[in-house]
Amino acid sequence: MAVADSTSRPDQSFIEGLARSESARLLRAKLGHRWPETTDELDVITRYALLPAGKLLRPLLALHAAEAVGGNPADLLVAALGLEYLHAATLVHDDIIDGDAVRRGRPSVPAAYGVPNAIVVGDHLIFGAFESIVEEPWVASPARVIAAVGELAEAGRDLCRGQTLESQLVGDIEAGARWYPEMIRRKTGTLFRTACHIGATLGGGNADAISGLAAYGEHIGIAFQIRDDLLSFVATPEQTGKSATSDLTNGRPTLPLILAYQAAGDADRAELCAVLARRGAGPRDLAWLRDLVANTGAVAGAYRQMAGHVERAVTELAVLSPSPSVTVLTGIARWTTSQNL
Amino acid sequence: MAVADSTSRPDQSFIEGLARSESARLLRAKLGHRWPETTDELDVITRYALLPAGKLLRPLLALHAAEAVGGNPADLLVAALGLEYLHAATLVHDDIIDGDAVRRGRPSVPAAYGVPNAIVVGDHLIFGAFESIVEEPWVASPARVIAAVGELAEAGRDLCRGQTLESQLVGDIEAGARWYPEMIRRKTGTLFRTACHIGATLGGGNADAISGLAAYGEHIGIAFQIRDDLLSFVATPEQTGKSATSDLTNGRPTLPLILAYQAAGDADRAELCAVLARRGAGPRDLAWLRDLVANTGAVAGAYRQMAGHVERAVTELAVLSPSPSVTVLTGIARWTTSQNL
Repeated sequence: MAVADSTSRPDQSFIEGLARSESARLLRAKLGHRWPETTDELDVITRYALLPAGKLLRPLLALHAAEAVGGNPADLLVAALGLEYLHAATLVHDDIIDGDAVRRGRPSVPAAYGVPNAIVVGDHLIFGAFESIVEEPWVASPARVIAAVGELAEAGRDLCRGQTLESQLVGDIEAGARWYPEMIRRKTGTLFRTACHIGATLGGGNADAISGLAAYGEHIGIAFQIRDDLLSFVATPEQTGKSATSDLTNGRPTLPLILAYQAAGDADRAELCAVLARRGAGPRDLAWLRDLVANTGAVAGAYRQMAGHVERAVTELAVLSPSPSVTVLTGIARWTTSQNL
Repeated sequence: MAVADSTSRPDQSFIEGLARSESARLLRAKLGHRWPETTDELDVITRYALLPAGKLLRPLLALHAAEAVGGNPADLLVAALGLEYLHAATLVHDDIIDGDAVRRGRPSVPAAYGVPNAIVVGDHLIFGAFESIVEEPWVASPARVIAAVGELAEAGRDLCRGQTLESQLVGDIEAGARWYPEMIRRKTGTLFRTACHIGATLGGGNADAISGLAAYGEHIGIAFQIRDDLLSFVATPEQTGKSATSDLTNGRPTLPLILAYQAAGDADRAELCAVLARRGAGPRDLAWLRDLVANTGAVAGAYRQMAGHVERAVTELAVLSPSPSVTVLTGIARWTTSQNL
């Protein structure tokens, strides 16, 4: 669907271009080198969780944040990949928790290798993330390396808090309305924030630059999550590579549903609560919900919130001197709202 | 049962005494302070996984290793507790993988709070472990703090490799015979090794002392695992606080079974394989296996292997100057073989 969009409309292939950039190429090469084909079962499954790589957005954010403060991104490849490991770990463990059998258009790790292996591989990726940060040669002063470890650990704890909060909101759209911003800040904002924070820290940034880039990351992380929540209602599983009904089946009050609920009449509210409570939403429920979120203005409302976070993200970049990396970071933010949602 | 024991027999209440030592008291106080009663669900479950504390052997090893190289254990309390967090994380995730409903004589975390919460709480504990190592004020030079982080990350990956290896050995006693030493080195030796390694590193030890203490830790970890495997056949669930048939139900070829298999005749071998393959061992199977491991000399054989690791552990301590902490470390090793097995 088309949504009124007051922001500029950059090239929609921006992210595809980013995925072909030199930084992305270096990251992919390093990732493939690190996780070669093997017969070791743990490494086979870990490789499956990581490859073929997605957009590598979090590592790319780290590299561009580093470059934006004057660092050399080529020195930071391993540390940046640590953010991809942590991201992949959360996906693997989330897929167990949500019972999701499809991820990136193919069987999820628990579906392909079973829950026990998925638990262990998620753990393996978490440990790998920390190992990546401290691997020698250190890319910054020891104090900065330690700060990056602390940031990663705090991010991980925040992700856990977000996951617990999400579980607590299951089936409860009113609690969802109250806690959704906090939940997505922790669940998605945190890792984007941390990618930028760690990149800026290891790149040698000063406190203001680190703090500005971290805030930028948090806002685009939140924007990405809202976009993801919107996609369940405006895109096909083929486009998103994952189940359109996972959030519904898991009783999740996502932003489009929350806004639809707030705008809907009593009958629609009751039906919306019933669908969430049922935990077995099918194609008819989804079709009804798609109409509801469109007709109540919930899609447009969610889009506006997303665009607001994009603007705030871009504003945070003002602390930095103009540079090619700042342009890329701005482009990543703008891309969120540039898609044919 | 009584087992011939060529080693000296120190006071069997040694570990109980250790649990009442000043170091243990400080650790317990810090642990309780860190994880107060709360209504936050994630912290409630994390606290449940940690408290009431067990023997705190891994943190105690770290403190005594630090003291043995001239460090001040009081400075290392938080970092040492990180080892308990990692240990607790492995227990929580293992209990999901093994389907174990009882741990330390009460419902395991997945039994009490469900699998999704148990996954998240295990992750939370892993992140908490890293956070503990880098928390300010740093207890050693930044380079030593980073080394400790790297050691913890590598230990975590090794634990995952051990877990995967254990899964691969399920139901296969011949593969078990081949891989059991490697598996328990990774699954249990690693964390004891790492506790001593990190304690000695943060305590300011030189390379020889760190390496000797790490080797000591690995050997006592292996000895403890053999002891644990033995207890399933010679102690009651009331004594061990956990299911006596978990290993059997999970088809695990533990050392007593491997040695019994190697010593048994064809009929007993076939029956042993059948029990493992059945994955539903009951009281009668357990009684039969208890007789088999006793009559084939497997209990005595496992005991001898355990005692061998204890001796090697003690030998590794020769690199250190005599001190009260070295005496404690020696006592921990000797305690393993001093029990009424």
